[in-house]
Amino acid sequence: MSKIRIGIVGYGNLGRGAEASVQLQPDMELVAVFSRRNDLQTVSGIPVYTMNQMKDFKGKIDVMILCGGSATDLIVQTPAVARDFVCIDSFDTHPRITEHFTTVDKAAKEGGTAALISCGWDPGMFSLQRVFAESILPQGKTYTFWGRGVSQGHSDAIRRIEGVLDARQYTVPKEAYLNAIRSGETPEVTAQEAHLRDCYVVAAENADKAKIEEEIKTMENYFVGYETAVHFISQKELDRDHKGIPHGGFVMRSGESTKGTSHVIEYSLKLDSNPEFTGSVLTAYARGLHRLASHGAKGAFTVFDIPPAWISTKSDAELRSHLL
Amino acid sequence: MSKIRIGIVGYGNLGRGAEASVQLQPDMELVAVFSRRNDLQTVSGIPVYTMNQMKDFKGKIDVMILCGGSATDLIVQTPAVARDFVCIDSFDTHPRITEHFTTVDKAAKEGGTAALISCGWDPGMFSLQRVFAESILPQGKTYTFWGRGVSQGHSDAIRRIEGVLDARQYTVPKEAYLNAIRSGETPEVTAQEAHLRDCYVVAAENADKAKIEEEIKTMENYFVGYETAVHFISQKELDRDHKGIPHGGFVMRSGESTKGTSHVIEYSLKLDSNPEFTGSVLTAYARGLHRLASHGAKGAFTVFDIPPAWISTKSDAELRSHLL
Repeated sequence: MSKIRIGIVGYGNLGRGAEASVQLQPDMELVAVFSRRNDLQTVSGIPVYTMNQMKDFKGKIDVMILCGGSATDLIVQTPAVARDFVCIDSFDTHPRITEHFTTVDKAAKEGGTAALISCGWDPGMFSLQRVFAESILPQGKTYTFWGRGVSQGHSDAIRRIEGVLDARQYTVPKEAYLNAIRSGETPEVTAQEAHLRDCYVVAAENADKAKIEEEIKTMENYFVGYETAVHFISQKELDRDHKGIPHGGFVMRSGESTKGTSHVIEYSLKLDSNPEFTGSVLTAYARGLHRLASHGAKGAFTVFDIPPAWISTKSDAELRSHLL
Repeated sequence: MSKIRIGIVGYGNLGRGAEASVQLQPDMELVAVFSRRNDLQTVSGIPVYTMNQMKDFKGKIDVMILCGGSATDLIVQTPAVARDFVCIDSFDTHPRITEHFTTVDKAAKEGGTAALISCGWDPGMFSLQRVFAESILPQGKTYTFWGRGVSQGHSDAIRRIEGVLDARQYTVPKEAYLNAIRSGETPEVTAQEAHLRDCYVVAAENADKAKIEEEIKTMENYFVGYETAVHFISQKELDRDHKGIPHGGFVMRSGESTKGTSHVIEYSLKLDSNPEFTGSVLTAYARGLHRLASHGAKGAFTVFDIPPAWISTKSDAELRSHLL
């Protein structure tokens, strides 16, 4: 059987994550990386092409994995690429998913391709768990917690404060809520109440630390309303202890099947590297999307549309005897 | 939209679990229960018919949920029912799944129906998690743990020992292994090593307790090779503390995306009632199977073949805006 030919669009942390993941998949072959920069060397040695050269690969790449950021890249790139290629992205700006789906769906239908959007761990694997849990236990409550993990946006926001040299912000779910739900309770809790924002800050030598802490805690849209802890550390400590980009989280549903008989479903991820894991999910679903496209499907799709068997390298008979 | 018309075949604990679950699903209607016994009253008041009357319901029931036991009921019932009805079962005798799939597939194809086999939590939801986790992290190790939960077969085996009046056996996963895997380790461990068998026994007044304990611990195929704990309690204590049929377990995968960068995926269930939760999974997948059948699919299928969107009551657009 011929291998699935993969292209990667965008070569930041996520692009490198997808590249590493493709190497681990025995039925895939990485053909090209596309980037706005033309001075790149890839980890695997796969050649890098400019975005303008992409059309030359029509018919030579089965699935394009789009690895740009949601805010400015994917919102325009996915519809553009979907006109020529079967493609998959990890678009994660929740409020704009419907809009993104609509533009990608139109482009893919016009181009005669299939595109899968919003595929990572949230949206992605967490979304699947929410659908499974809610469908099985219609009477109940679903919770999503994120962390302990680095929030890039919040870290950046802290770094913009005067007197701050470097910073790393972790989102941390509060154990008390996790444990209450595990024991069958269904607390009313907002995302703000359920998470702690834990900040590690390197301040300039003569900076006013009390003022920095105050500025962090009162920052609108980022920290106001959250329990926020601020720790001042040295650059050396930050480089030593906080240079990874771990993330993860929990999807939990507590529900009753009959009065007083309750069940708790919990799905959790503990990830050493957020972009490497997201790249791994994209790669597995590139396989599922390839299979969907080979059945003639056209338009935009999500993880909800892919039969789980299709993301596996195993045959249906192997799946039944080994994993069922 | 007309409701999905459901029939339940077999009215033990699982049948009652499915009955309760159908009541919670807004798009389903329970039409009939079929049983070998004709003296039953159902919890919901739905009429009970004998197995021989089933054929009269052809065209009046969309999906039959088969709720018999695997060993003697489903192995013959599912192929028989599949000739006339779209049907779903929770067949869980792992070594016989391939054989069961083959006979059901043949019957369903001959009857022009679709049948979904082995749908519960294991096989079922746990199987799905194994496929997701292995596909995303091809380089890693998957673990399945069962419990803390009641094993009916082991409880029965203890009750057959002379001098034993009643007994309840719990399978308990060992925390040390769970914690090791959660911290990124990939221990080599057999199912025997990973689980404790915890036995609560009511002995007759003059019974030789030491002898009973010895007989339990040396019982071939049940307890030999397992760490086994035996607690003697009164019938009153057993009735008070051990009358439920809780179960659950864990599917975990620890895997690397690049050298030294590892991720832990964990899915767990904590169930107050094993049959009620299994009935809930069957009911949600009855919806997915109905949709598969309405697309003209014929033959045998598993949870791996059903797009997750199809088990939900929500439309694709609702799923994208609320759960993605």
